[in-house]
Amino acid sequence: MTPPDLDILGIGNAIVDVLAPTPDAFLAERGLPKGGMSLISTEQAEALYAAMPAGVESSGGSAANTCAVAAALGARVGFLGKVAPDALGRVFAHDIRAAGVHFPTAPLEGGAPTARCLILVTPDGQRTMNTFLGACVSFGEADVDEAEVARAGIVYLEGYLFDPPAAQAAFRKAARAARAAGRQVAITLSDPFCVGRHRDAFLDFVRRDADILFANEAEVTALYGTEDFEEAAARAGQDVAIAALTRSARGSVILAGTTRVTVPAAPAQVVDTTGAGDAYAAGFLAAHARGLGLEQAGRWGSIAAAEVIGHFGARPQADLKEMVA
Amino acid sequence: MTPPDLDILGIGNAIVDVLAPTPDAFLAERGLPKGGMSLISTEQAEALYAAMPAGVESSGGSAANTCAVAAALGARVGFLGKVAPDALGRVFAHDIRAAGVHFPTAPLEGGAPTARCLILVTPDGQRTMNTFLGACVSFGEADVDEAEVARAGIVYLEGYLFDPPAAQAAFRKAARAARAAGRQVAITLSDPFCVGRHRDAFLDFVRRDADILFANEAEVTALYGTEDFEEAAARAGQDVAIAALTRSARGSVILAGTTRVTVPAAPAQVVDTTGAGDAYAAGFLAAHARGLGLEQAGRWGSIAAAEVIGHFGARPQADLKEMVA
Repeated sequence: MTPPDLDILGIGNAIVDVLAPTPDAFLAERGLPKGGMSLISTEQAEALYAAMPAGVESSGGSAANTCAVAAALGARVGFLGKVAPDALGRVFAHDIRAAGVHFPTAPLEGGAPTARCLILVTPDGQRTMNTFLGACVSFGEADVDEAEVARAGIVYLEGYLFDPPAAQAAFRKAARAARAAGRQVAITLSDPFCVGRHRDAFLDFVRRDADILFANEAEVTALYGTEDFEEAAARAGQDVAIAALTRSARGSVILAGTTRVTVPAAPAQVVDTTGAGDAYAAGFLAAHARGLGLEQAGRWGSIAAAEVIGHFGARPQADLKEMVA
Repeated sequence: MTPPDLDILGIGNAIVDVLAPTPDAFLAERGLPKGGMSLISTEQAEALYAAMPAGVESSGGSAANTCAVAAALGARVGFLGKVAPDALGRVFAHDIRAAGVHFPTAPLEGGAPTARCLILVTPDGQRTMNTFLGACVSFGEADVDEAEVARAGIVYLEGYLFDPPAAQAAFRKAARAARAAGRQVAITLSDPFCVGRHRDAFLDFVRRDADILFANEAEVTALYGTEDFEEAAARAGQDVAIAALTRSARGSVILAGTTRVTVPAAPAQVVDTTGAGDAYAAGFLAAHARGLGLEQAGRWGSIAAAEVIGHFGARPQADLKEMVA
């Protein structure tokens, strides 16, 4: 079998974030579920943008953030996702390439504009996300190049991609291509509401196609329809080869067959939790791709997550390679 | 005379900033003058953007920053400047309105895209700016609504507007309209290179039209063709009613007839100097519009400048009203 020449190929929504600080009342007045991700229409996006304070734009997207962080940790990374050929699409493409990530997906011609996520950061550092999917809705099977998938040791899929209609088929195609090439398939559940919207499809995918599962407590309990984390964790451990389950300040639990590793969170001053889970997955996968073992993988994940929650924005600002060394 | 219903009307380039950290070598390799502002063509902008690291986008523009900061200090503020009806133009318009600034200028239809400034921030916190003027080149006399000028107690003009060809005529129209309505005219020199490009036009404007002059040491010495700050300051004091001259960590000197006030800089941890001069002018004008006197005006300027250099980006993140109280 040809060894992979990429460590990780991420597939996800290609999104530009618009971050702005807001008081809690701003969320309450609009019924926005704090800490969650809501899908919004063009009209809702325009109304919310008009009401929110001045923002700062930066490239985002869950799997794309993971790819940028993993590249910062020295992994060889690619990303597939759909932008439009507009100013924000050029920002997204520039930033992910500048992070050292291979990004071959062709922009969508003549369709919706580049996706954006209006992120409201409350004084406690929690982020509430409102996503207008735009061009991402058009991401489909045709965008999954099997040769690109076969190049990567791990294909990493973002749960949010269960929302755009054509993307589930793209997921399955990517998983088949990875399997055929002898590669691993990782998936992150992304968001408990997203799990709720597509629970059967997620369960089916996790059981049939996934080798590695990333989820936080709310997501894994939503997936297995239980309120008991330990029960959900045990079931995840039976469904996949590796389950890496994050618990915010309590660190993470990693299950692999009969092995159970508990990893503490790295110390952090919480400024903005945007991208914490994405960065954890990046650290985990970058270490895993190097064969560093579960404990080190969890440690790299904790360190990467602590770095990104210490500042505004989801991509790293400090030298992560030095931090894990 | 009708009292003004705006305190300040700013006129300047409407620009979206793209900020990225770079090492000093990145500037040296490209011959970019550190700390300065260079005008770049579409092709140069594309080449520089392709080479620079992932960035963070936020609304900028010198006078526009001043307007946003002055509004944050409670002043009633308007702004005139030209964007295109594209994604970055909508970002600019949203952000300045969200800051509480009245922004009536119509976007440019069918012309160049919204201006952007590629800002490279070196580890010492200095910013080196590379501006693609885009739609700003089309800002001209027709965009200066005399009724808007007459509404404001002070019209504030950005020296960078001497670069786009049609804007000098717009400046003169704004100054005439302000004079006719019994209002004050303030101008900032913006940049020593910009002063060098348009020295005679600046000198003529300062002497004939300006009541208040803002400049830093490099700019005021460039204007008067001397290396001696005291000589330049004395000449500025003869040319305008109020000259507010900033000296970085050494604070500012304010000259008004025979009065000379020296104001210390406010303590700051320098992260990114982008917008320091803009914020100083904002604090000064917001206090001046309230009739607080030169010493308080300088103090408000110092506090506003210290706030914006303490973080990435040119617009305030802390509660400035509380800081000056």
